[in-house]
Amino acid sequence: MVNVGVLGATGMVGQRFIQLLDKHPDFELTALAASSRSAGKRYEDATTWYLDDEMPESVKDIVVCETNPEDMDNDVDIVFSSLPTEFAAKVEKDFAKDYVVASNASAHRMKKNIPLVIPEVNPEYLDMIDAQQKENNWDGFIVTNPNCSTIALTLTLKPIVDNFNVNSIRVSTMQAVSGAGYNGVPSMAIVDNLVPYIGSEEEKMESETLHLLGSFDGEKVNDANFRLSASCHRVPVIDGHTEAIFIELDDDFDIGDVKDKMANFKALPQELNLFSAPENPVIVKEEMDRPQPRMDRNAGNGMSVSVGRLRKDQAFDNSFKYVLVGHNTIRGAAGASVLNAELINERIL
Amino acid sequence: MVNVGVLGATGMVGQRFIQLLDKHPDFELTALAASSRSAGKRYEDATTWYLDDEMPESVKDIVVCETNPEDMDNDVDIVFSSLPTEFAAKVEKDFAKDYVVASNASAHRMKKNIPLVIPEVNPEYLDMIDAQQKENNWDGFIVTNPNCSTIALTLTLKPIVDNFNVNSIRVSTMQAVSGAGYNGVPSMAIVDNLVPYIGSEEEKMESETLHLLGSFDGEKVNDANFRLSASCHRVPVIDGHTEAIFIELDDDFDIGDVKDKMANFKALPQELNLFSAPENPVIVKEEMDRPQPRMDRNAGNGMSVSVGRLRKDQAFDNSFKYVLVGHNTIRGAAGASVLNAELINERIL
Amino acid sequence: MVNVGVLGATGMVGQRFIQLLDKHPDFELTALAASSRSAGKRYEDATTWYLDDEMPESVKDIVVCETNPEDMDNDVDIVFSSLPTEFAAKVEKDFAKDYVVASNASAHRMKKNIPLVIPEVNPEYLDMIDAQQKENNWDGFIVTNPNCSTIALTLTLKPIVDNFNVNSIRVSTMQAVSGAGYNGVPSMAIVDNLVPYIGSEEEKMESETLHLLGSFDGEKVNDANFRLSASCHRVPVIDGHTEAIFIELDDDFDIGDVKDKMANFKALPQELNLFSAPENPVIVKEEMDRPQPRMDRNAGNGMSVSVGRLRKDQAFDNSFKYVLVGHNTIRGAAGASVLNAELINERIL
Amino acid sequence: MVNVGVLGATGMVGQRFIQLLDKHPDFELTALAASSRSAGKRYEDATTWYLDDEMPESVKDIVVCETNPEDMDNDVDIVFSSLPTEFAAKVEKDFAKDYVVASNASAHRMKKNIPLVIPEVNPEYLDMIDAQQKENNWDGFIVTNPNCSTIALTLTLKPIVDNFNVNSIRVSTMQAVSGAGYNGVPSMAIVDNLVPYIGSEEEKMESETLHLLGSFDGEKVNDANFRLSASCHRVPVIDGHTEAIFIELDDDFDIGDVKDKMANFKALPQELNLFSAPENPVIVKEEMDRPQPRMDRNAGNGMSVSVGRLRKDQAFDNSFKYVLVGHNTIRGAAGASVLNAELINERIL
Repeated sequence: MVNVGVLGATGMVGQRFIQLLDKHPDFELTALAASSRSAGKRYEDATTWYLDDEMPESVKDIVVCETNPEDMDNDVDIVFSSLPTEFAAKVEKDFAKDYVVASNASAHRMKKNIPLVIPEVNPEYLDMIDAQQKENNWDGFIVTNPNCSTIALTLTLKPIVDNFNVNSIRVSTMQAVSGAGYNGVPSMAIVDNLVPYIGSEEEKMESETLHLLGSFDGEKVNDANFRLSASCHRVPVIDGHTEAIFIELDDDFDIGDVKDKMANFKALPQELNLFSAPENPVIVKEEMDRPQPRMDRNAGNGMSVSVGRLRKDQAFDNSFKYVLVGHNTIRGAAGASVLNAELINERIL
Repeated sequence: MVNVGVLGATGMVGQRFIQLLDKHPDFELTALAASSRSAGKRYEDATTWYLDDEMPESVKDIVVCETNPEDMDNDVDIVFSSLPTEFAAKVEKDFAKDYVVASNASAHRMKKNIPLVIPEVNPEYLDMIDAQQKENNWDGFIVTNPNCSTIALTLTLKPIVDNFNVNSIRVSTMQAVSGAGYNGVPSMAIVDNLVPYIGSEEEKMESETLHLLGSFDGEKVNDANFRLSASCHRVPVIDGHTEAIFIELDDDFDIGDVKDKMANFKALPQELNLFSAPENPVIVKEEMDRPQPRMDRNAGNGMSVSVGRLRKDQAFDNSFKYVLVGHNTIRGAAGASVLNAELINERIL
Repeated sequence: MVNVGVLGATGMVGQRFIQLLDKHPDFELTALAASSRSAGKRYEDATTWYLDDEMPESVKDIVVCETNPEDMDNDVDIVFSSLPTEFAAKVEKDFAKDYVVASNASAHRMKKNIPLVIPEVNPEYLDMIDAQQKENNWDGFIVTNPNCSTIALTLTLKPIVDNFNVNSIRVSTMQAVSGAGYNGVPSMAIVDNLVPYIGSEEEKMESETLHLLGSFDGEKVNDANFRLSASCHRVPVIDGHTEAIFIELDDDFDIGDVKDKMANFKALPQELNLFSAPENPVIVKEEMDRPQPRMDRNAGNGMSVSVGRLRKDQAFDNSFKYVLVGHNTIRGAAGASVLNAELINERIL
Repeated sequence: MVNVGVLGATGMVGQRFIQLLDKHPDFELTALAASSRSAGKRYEDATTWYLDDEMPESVKDIVVCETNPEDMDNDVDIVFSSLPTEFAAKVEKDFAKDYVVASNASAHRMKKNIPLVIPEVNPEYLDMIDAQQKENNWDGFIVTNPNCSTIALTLTLKPIVDNFNVNSIRVSTMQAVSGAGYNGVPSMAIVDNLVPYIGSEEEKMESETLHLLGSFDGEKVNDANFRLSASCHRVPVIDGHTEAIFIELDDDFDIGDVKDKMANFKALPQELNLFSAPENPVIVKEEMDRPQPRMDRNAGNGMSVSVGRLRKDQAFDNSFKYVLVGHNTIRGAAGASVLNAELINERIL
């Protein structure tokens, strides 16, 4: 068992980390860090629990520590970070001197030598770690996962780019309110309404996806060479991002073939049988009105992305459309970091 | 004053007709037709009123008649139809023998010699009426308006196609539940959820838009020659369809120019000062998080379409993106038919 | 293993039965009955699945039969009924000739010799069964469970009436839309809205609760002798009824004592360790803003009722107030029938 | 025309003040005060507008001033306050030296010599003003209106207490999210959920209602002598509080008589024909499923309270039940202060 900790443990993604790490076969959650306001208190006393399932018994009595390496238990090997970006920039570097940092924060994504990884998509980017450690003279290192809407999209694109020549992609999202954090979206903003804007989200989707689906040449990442445009919108859904995708290929194709490639997609996490790896990273639904966020977000314990309405686009040559739903705080956040850590634990530690 | 009637008067769009016709300066609402179950009753007794505003006093005592021309008051000149498609196919033809039928139903849209019209977009299609009357030997005629999501989209496209060479359009919609009728979307289907499918909606948007933005050569309509693909989704919003639009032009352009053309767009209904014509068919919002359905659906008394997030698409050459909100049961249904009737009343009757 | 069947298997409560019976240690689900439209089809083909969890594999291939005893597999011993009231009246009697009928329908509730039972509250009412069988010359019998809002209320009242003299109760409910069936509440009726009326609900709560908390003298039930008034309202929540309760006792009391009696309440199902019996029928929450339906409906696998805001009522002598949340389609419907069947299986079969 | 100002002008209730004062026949809105962050800016630049209707043109160019009397235009006679309680305590006193303060804040409610007034209920409490001015040596004075849920309840109780002997009242509320301010209720807290707790709300309802329905003896208020208990809950509704009420009278009564007294209730504001006074302070609905917040909150321009489901309570002697809906930010907040000011303007200034 590897001892692990959570940074930002009282927040919503922090709570998802705790939920996913409870009874984990490889990781023992022994440290919880949060702001000074919480530090020194029992976790149960420091936290308003936001999730539908109960707070795990195992964390209730853990005393919350300050968010810096000196206050973290020495026996911890991996820390999961759901810190706000502005804090993550410095704090994650401090931890990386001695700890493996599996981060859901955006602060270090796509920086030189810092792997941005989805285990099913680009596990080879972990090869950057050596250079990262040498460059910084760190014993630990930082690994990041992408933005929530990027992860769901990229997982479904992987079997496509592996088998077809993609020319262009447009994606329009309908994102859950949990993606903005517990206090992020006031009810006054979203009841009988939607908000067609999410700060920096389109930029993240457009850049991270091309990075993830690019190639690492041993020194740097060369972005994938198709074009990708995103329009991002917030809707009154608690959990589960929905995305409508328009894809243009370079060549003619068979839509049944696209479907098969998605439905049968398996990758390294499935081969290694990692604990959080879903049996199917992508599930293809046949019903004409699926996927739907409330019905499909928990597929594969929240780690599968559900795809539906896969259909030829009659308006454009070589084109098709589909809709996906992915759980934004599991596969799109805490679960992404945990799966990264499982891969690291299997391959590197 | 022209006497008018409403077919399908107890339904949701029927109620919008009644609301819009109350205190109308040109039209006097004197006849209300509905199913046999309602016929013979006072309108107030026959109807569960669904709108937030009160039922107008003027209609409460009107006795509902059966939905056929023999039962309709002879003094009526125009009937507004919000009949279900399957009934509309025959019934509207029966009425067209003697009445002007301004229809929101889809049964006769885009059929030969039946104008599908948005007054700001293609008023010249009304020239089909002569041929329609001759062909059928009717004293009256049928005029239709497009599907709700088509109208909002096409209104914003008109100033674009008039000023730029459009190559392709993708649109992803987030549509209000009222579009499916009062009982159309169960709450179980949409609370904390969305439904990524609306029957026939994508086909309607794709075909009607090209038809509306095409040209009438005196005999037939030649569709516009750009390509258009739609993905349609239902969200938990009462009224107001939101659409995210990706447009590719043939040539380079100035985004400020696009904005000006939209913001300054005026057309025949504005020139004629038709009663239901909004001052601005398209309103361009500057706030980064608008338009929003609850905030913007009532702009221009529900007859304006609000556009926002107009921005260059960095991923594609000659491309831009925007978001629109339009009121689906006013501009997208009853108001569309009423404006058509106002134009007909001004120009033809 | 006892073979069991479900009547009304394609409906929402029918689906909950299937979910709760999947992998049940005592019951083997072997028969599914539904309307003629579904009969003859595989269950998976006959059903639009409404629940968030996937349809259990074990039922997908079961061929749906007609809803009458002749078409039901002979090996079945218990049938669970979620039939609409109007069908249940006759059909359940037909089945009772040979089967144990555990019914969630209201048709036979509180009729002479037909037990209306909550296992934690009045298991002794099962003693009516002998008389029921003799009177009708049946080999089987009917057992019913109460209305959803009644069950949650009565479970929390049981430890109170057992320990204090209750004078009067007022209850105001905020009920989930699932209680009305999948198509029961249109989204147009409930988004940004609530409906302060549920047909017959207040009458059921007022009569069933007094019946359940009364006493069975071997021949008939003598109602409890306190007074109870209900006001019932529908709110935009998928699952989980919330109820605000005002109680007046005959005598002074200690609020801590009320809390202890509720929190420590255990009854026969807990003693017998019935499979669906929750460890605690009533859970008392300490947080000032709980219970909440989305957070607490699944407590005890949906079989516990959560109570909170237990406080003295300063306005009235000998009075207190509290709020409860119970899962309306688990503890309040399918789970109630299953627990009844478990008790019958343990004690009678 | 009397010049008026608004304190807390950028907040949600502040915006309602602006909306209600736009085109007011007696009041000219000339001053807008807000926090230092907004002071010095044009109102349009300082404010994110939250209401569905557009920001009135007349206020866009008003330069926001600091919230103290020195920075307020001298020509202003009345200031409307929607300040947070903690600021209101001191600031309203500062203004009262020279201005009439019509306050929606709770800071000075029910304090000695400060009238807490609903014009239809207890206009005579304005007689406290003389003593207030003398005691404080002020040229101006403070008048307050009650809490939103109190106002709706008390308006419907007034015709009852005037005509019947009320023994006791229990009320269970289902309150809109706007009552907590724009950022008050996160969407994560309320989508597919409700929150059965609103801080201090029950205490306010219980104390303010008895105060308003008491009597002013020239020196102090003697509370009404019935008993009142409240249970308060937040539901996913934008505007419009719903309340379920259980009333016990001392004597037998005729339910039709109760209905008539409510439906025909008129009071001083109606006699004086005050601009914001609704024709009917209480509207009695006959439909079995009304009032509903989305349908009825705007009755009487948001100044009427709608009552429905008025029915005998069969469980208790001399008792009846009903449900009300009132607009919480119009009649329950800004509109209440404006109506108070209209009465003061008519009677005192």
